[in-house]
Amino acid sequence: MRCGNGIEARQVDELFINIDPIQAGGRLTADAMKAVIAYGDGYSVCDNCRKPNRLDYISKPPIAEFHKDVAAWLNMDTVRTVPGARRGFQAVAHTYVHKGDPVLLTSLSHYTEFLAIEETGGIAREIPVDADHKVTPEATATKIEEVKREFGRVPALAFIDHVDYQYGNMHDVKAIAKVAHGYDIPVLYNGAYTVGILPVDGKDLGVDFVVGSGHKSMAAPAPSGVLAVTAERAAEVFRTTTIVGDVTNRKFGIKEPEMMGCTLMGATLVGLMASFPHVKERVKHFDRELENNAIVMDALLAIEGTTCLSEYPRKHTMTRVDTTASFDTIAEAHRKRGFYFSSALGEKGITGLIPGATKIWKFNTYGTTKKQAMHLADAFIAVACENGLPLKK
Amino acid sequence: MRCGNGIEARQVDELFINIDPIQAGGRLTADAMKAVIAYGDGYSVCDNCRKPNRLDYISKPPIAEFHKDVAAWLNMDTVRTVPGARRGFQAVAHTYVHKGDPVLLTSLSHYTEFLAIEETGGIAREIPVDADHKVTPEATATKIEEVKREFGRVPALAFIDHVDYQYGNMHDVKAIAKVAHGYDIPVLYNGAYTVGILPVDGKDLGVDFVVGSGHKSMAAPAPSGVLAVTAERAAEVFRTTTIVGDVTNRKFGIKEPEMMGCTLMGATLVGLMASFPHVKERVKHFDRELENNAIVMDALLAIEGTTCLSEYPRKHTMTRVDTTASFDTIAEAHRKRGFYFSSALGEKGITGLIPGATKIWKFNTYGTTKKQAMHLADAFIAVACENGLPLKK
Repeated sequence: MRCGNGIEARQVDELFINIDPIQAGGRLTADAMKAVIAYGDGYSVCDNCRKPNRLDYISKPPIAEFHKDVAAWLNMDTVRTVPGARRGFQAVAHTYVHKGDPVLLTSLSHYTEFLAIEETGGIAREIPVDADHKVTPEATATKIEEVKREFGRVPALAFIDHVDYQYGNMHDVKAIAKVAHGYDIPVLYNGAYTVGILPVDGKDLGVDFVVGSGHKSMAAPAPSGVLAVTAERAAEVFRTTTIVGDVTNRKFGIKEPEMMGCTLMGATLVGLMASFPHVKERVKHFDRELENNAIVMDALLAIEGTTCLSEYPRKHTMTRVDTTASFDTIAEAHRKRGFYFSSALGEKGITGLIPGATKIWKFNTYGTTKKQAMHLADAFIAVACENGLPLKK
Repeated sequence: MRCGNGIEARQVDELFINIDPIQAGGRLTADAMKAVIAYGDGYSVCDNCRKPNRLDYISKPPIAEFHKDVAAWLNMDTVRTVPGARRGFQAVAHTYVHKGDPVLLTSLSHYTEFLAIEETGGIAREIPVDADHKVTPEATATKIEEVKREFGRVPALAFIDHVDYQYGNMHDVKAIAKVAHGYDIPVLYNGAYTVGILPVDGKDLGVDFVVGSGHKSMAAPAPSGVLAVTAERAAEVFRTTTIVGDVTNRKFGIKEPEMMGCTLMGATLVGLMASFPHVKERVKHFDRELENNAIVMDALLAIEGTTCLSEYPRKHTMTRVDTTASFDTIAEAHRKRGFYFSSALGEKGITGLIPGATKIWKFNTYGTTKKQAMHLADAFIAVACENGLPLKK
């Protein structure tokens, strides 16, 4: 079936159990699917835009209420929607980082945080991770001291990923933020893998900014996300425009330069809003998600030679495993080479692994039912057995 | 019908002839509606993302081909998609404008261009318009000379709206760009009201950047848009990342800082792509759109006291009229006050006017059929007659 010239209709999550590491949290809810159709037209949310003419003031659909609800849910003071978490990073970096300023992030930080720093002319300084691939408050303090010696000043901003994209490890943001705040460094909490997945309490974490991704973890269409800030920081990041036209003397009301005015005017925003009640509910049941992940991990680790590169037991469903000494040993002699692995899983109704990858790979069981988790577990064991890989006793 | 908690399904374009000035060009095509459902899930276009891992290299769905097609269609060299035209302005401003730099725009420029300048620390300088609300090459030259005297240097960049948002007037971008280039000022063509509406040839216009809006004029969901540039400028605006992790020595491939990496990862992009063949076709028939606009304008101007504030005859379907001496004269004594006007039109199946506005207002007939245009014309005349307003002889 086609949905346009040369565009095949995508049916990945309809036909398969999808364990793609970045797609699991962004599958639309049924309400979001209805919303993208009902609000698909370009400026669809602007029907009832009245003075002061800003997206977050619109009450029909209930955009204003949504902004307040998200702020309360994250225990922060002010929220704006953004076209992706990365645009939240950009807005914050642009507010605090000037050319030549050192900026703190971690050895596991996402590339979009680096780009946000690069775009402002900042200089990236990574906190090293320990042997377990964890960022510690001690390493944070040491790195800040190093930056002070190198630059004669502390970093202008710190980006800390609660759960990193490489290992899915959970880092102690609360303790790290405390260290950074001891040096008066504002802290941005990157919740791309947590906001919409598990409970997040910004005030308890003691962070200045919470950034979430709609399309990664809030069951919303791309590009979408949220930037939640404390009242103190709101006046800085969400400052309103002061520019004036020199000929017309025009001013531009309460539009916010870092947001470039209104942000998500249609399907993306209403998709995010429609999924929100479901997202609020699902974060309360993250324990079930970890149980399902454990079912799959138990199976993988039962295959001789397979190791978990992520922290274990798992605190997040996105997991990195090493099958160099198990599934990869088959690849060389297999007629499909490394593609045998994703191919065999595909035959069992499983997708989301990079085709050809048999050494180190990531997967995400988020959103699977227990039955699906058991099917995944059985499938990995079956592919191992079919290829003569030994199981642990 | 609801599409989520408290969110009424929008049925504006299903139930009414919608002449909202900003919504007319952003109504989805049927193919785009299919696309937003099929590709609604967050990172839906990333199923087949392979090295070098950048959005515009993905061939299934045919994203790479789409980028090439859009560049050819606009007669420019390189295209990227952006989350709204404003994010195109931001990327270009950020590349060329430094703190304190003067930037040229016009007395009719959109607020998002001002915000792009403000965000980079630039200083806005408006080209005055003439008595007909047109920006001329002569006024451009005069303003550049003024800026030179004031700042000791020429503007770092010029934003020129081909069709402005206030009057829908068409400005002579080709001649204006020639003047700006005489001073080596790069020119950004703001095609928010033209790209996707009428034919645009970037090389013929002689501009460095063409920015279009998906949700305003390309029948796409928000936020979406395109930034098309010349080969010379591509190396500047689309330069690739050079930042390096100091601990990990990580580099980030061919990601582009001004784009913040990948831009539109799902429904927005595929919506834009699905509508594109229809959009390419519709720009060839803009003459029909002007004919329909003329049907409506003839009716409005037949009502004694009504004047057209936009250039006339119309060169664009988005039009500003003054009914202070016609429809507004009824408002004071009417029990519905000024709301009688939009209310009476609503009863005739017409929407998109700001409720209560009876003095100066804008409308856009884009996308109406001839029959709908005739209905609009009849409706305006009928509301005039019902309220005892005289028609011209």
